[in-house]
Amino acid sequence: MATFREIAGGGVTAPEGFLAGAASCGIKNPDSDKLDLMILSSAHPTVTAATFTSNRVQAAPVRVTREHLATEDDVRAVIVSSGNANACTGAQGMADAREMAALAAERLNLRPSQVAVCSTGVIGKPLPMERIRPKIDEAATLGDDPLRPTLAIMTSDTVPKYSAVELPIGDRMVRIGAMTKGAGMICPNMATMLCFVTTDAAVDPDCLQALTKRAVDRSFNRITIDGDMSTNDTVLVMANGQAGNAVITVGTPEAEALGEALRHVLLGLAKAMIRDAEKATRFIELEVRGARTEPEAHTVAKAVANSVLVKCMWNGGQPYWGRVMHAIGYSGVDIVEERIAIDFNDVPAARGGISAGTPVEVMREETDQAEHRLVIDLGLGEAGSIVYTSDISEKFVEFNLLD
Amino acid sequence: MATFREIAGGGVTAPEGFLAGAASCGIKNPDSDKLDLMILSSAHPTVTAATFTSNRVQAAPVRVTREHLATEDDVRAVIVSSGNANACTGAQGMADAREMAALAAERLNLRPSQVAVCSTGVIGKPLPMERIRPKIDEAATLGDDPLRPTLAIMTSDTVPKYSAVELPIGDRMVRIGAMTKGAGMICPNMATMLCFVTTDAAVDPDCLQALTKRAVDRSFNRITIDGDMSTNDTVLVMANGQAGNAVITVGTPEAEALGEALRHVLLGLAKAMIRDAEKATRFIELEVRGARTEPEAHTVAKAVANSVLVKCMWNGGQPYWGRVMHAIGYSGVDIVEERIAIDFNDVPAARGGISAGTPVEVMREETDQAEHRLVIDLGLGEAGSIVYTSDISEKFVEFNLLD
Repeated sequence: MATFREIAGGGVTAPEGFLAGAASCGIKNPDSDKLDLMILSSAHPTVTAATFTSNRVQAAPVRVTREHLATEDDVRAVIVSSGNANACTGAQGMADAREMAALAAERLNLRPSQVAVCSTGVIGKPLPMERIRPKIDEAATLGDDPLRPTLAIMTSDTVPKYSAVELPIGDRMVRIGAMTKGAGMICPNMATMLCFVTTDAAVDPDCLQALTKRAVDRSFNRITIDGDMSTNDTVLVMANGQAGNAVITVGTPEAEALGEALRHVLLGLAKAMIRDAEKATRFIELEVRGARTEPEAHTVAKAVANSVLVKCMWNGGQPYWGRVMHAIGYSGVDIVEERIAIDFNDVPAARGGISAGTPVEVMREETDQAEHRLVIDLGLGEAGSIVYTSDISEKFVEFNLLD
Repeated sequence: MATFREIAGGGVTAPEGFLAGAASCGIKNPDSDKLDLMILSSAHPTVTAATFTSNRVQAAPVRVTREHLATEDDVRAVIVSSGNANACTGAQGMADAREMAALAAERLNLRPSQVAVCSTGVIGKPLPMERIRPKIDEAATLGDDPLRPTLAIMTSDTVPKYSAVELPIGDRMVRIGAMTKGAGMICPNMATMLCFVTTDAAVDPDCLQALTKRAVDRSFNRITIDGDMSTNDTVLVMANGQAGNAVITVGTPEAEALGEALRHVLLGLAKAMIRDAEKATRFIELEVRGARTEPEAHTVAKAVANSVLVKCMWNGGQPYWGRVMHAIGYSGVDIVEERIAIDFNDVPAARGGISAGTPVEVMREETDQAEHRLVIDLGLGEAGSIVYTSDISEKFVEFNLLD
């Protein structure tokens, strides 16, 4: 097993050959000077893998990026706007997304198909292209600062989320950098978020896609905040080979090492997203074990994590395991009530589907904390799943009254 | 089509031969004098049909009632306790539920199997039988008041919900009475609630079961408040033939007439439950039309109605149709984005999956009301579904911090 180590303060520009820039266009609010346009680019040929939302309503930038990835071998850049999702915007939206790619491509000396496009924000309003066009030059002025680009992709986030690691591959040191945005509107198949990952490892396209899918599945697909899936979710992973290692292919120890590091990076960012959930006050690690299959474990975990009444319980720091039982019961998975065990951290709450007899105050010592673990054992098999989630609070509702 | 008319102030005791009683045991709080024990009984042989929760965690009273209905032809009474669901209570819970049936049976001169048992309230705590036993006599002192029995089955309800109608069947007048409880924890398959329906019509058992299932499907299964399904949901429909009509069988005009009246009664109570939703401030009639099949229409409707972000939007009285689009998109139904139309009452919000161009203030005049209709046309077929729902407010969260 390869060892990776964190690069303190590193982000998407940590790997060799990746630079990024940002600008403030006033996309959501013309009078704001919030950074809201970002360009990330590789100076060298790049292999890009991606995962997208499974929402059947797909934003224009998602459609355009899919097209580019389907026809172009060397996607090297991405242009991102925040404050407006450019979703449900019809033909105008498609034209605007293509124009964003073309404007960035022109400035970077690339083909438009080499540029991916992402947007995040309000649904249903056309992009204010007249405010974006004048700022392309500034966003395309690339440097190695990882922070400003991260600020430019944020919407409801309260903290910028980025990280980087390095690890040995063969006789080379390879770096992986990443930044993400997303806090509200998360779950079940993919968090509403954008995540951009860069690496200077040389990786085969099929291998990169497989590693990406697996890492996303075990990180972003494991977080849930309020049960809603976005129209714009995108994860892009770009590998430009500048570390000079031998090209990594599927099924090798090197692929395994890179995949583990990638998963570590994405999981860390996913957990950061949970902690930054819109007005959430608690972080919960929800583990379901003893299921017949992993999909069944995951289905139960999601049902419990998304239950509004369970979230209210978490908000109040209460140990109402009965609400957990009832959410397990409507998950759709064929469970056996009398085999269910529930624990808060290591304190038993239920055994055999009924009270374990632990006094409420003892259980509450575990649940009335900023973080705790809820462990559900279904007693039916050997499979399991872990989901990270948060509570729901009055402020969440208040925050979401306005778009 | 037969005509039915409301019986003002009528409830479960309106039909001939049904009486009910109530008592205060202090089940949830020993110091409270809230009515929390109810017995409803028919003085004559009775045919009883029922529907139950699909939650795989089933409360002891649900299990006991299912047993009785499976083996007994003449279930004539029901004993109900509120404040404690007697769910996730194991063998003790089963013994307690059986004892409740036995105590009522003894007092009413019936076999225990002739008594159905229901409970509602907190999950996971054993019933305080020591407080219930001394009050059985009082609850079994039957009269024709419909209000006190309704108060006795309520938990988080703020208003008692009961009604009655009468209609001609053949040359007789037949009555249907009903009472219900339930406001929070509603959806998707059956509202968390209890509903007791009485009729003096003579009905064949198969026919009564078919009419019950159909009426519940088109009423209680159409309401959703906060996305959670209960462990205790029960609808009981009891027919004692005292009106003297010829026994009603499946597929006849009389069955049609009775079914229509039954559905009307249940739908009225279901709507009352929505209006009484825990701290909700808005009532929404959500219609999905133009679906390929009714189940698909219903799936889309539920996804939108249960979306936390959509509910927040309703709470704020806002016309953010984009959030509706995105909830439609993650419903799991294969939709075509470009065919979707959305209206608020009769005001267009989206056409062809994009903005209809209606100014926000004009749309807001419709959405910032106590009630409005959200109409979604999928443009894929001829099937439709209607769901009644409410918003989510900060007070909902606050209310649900404690069990």
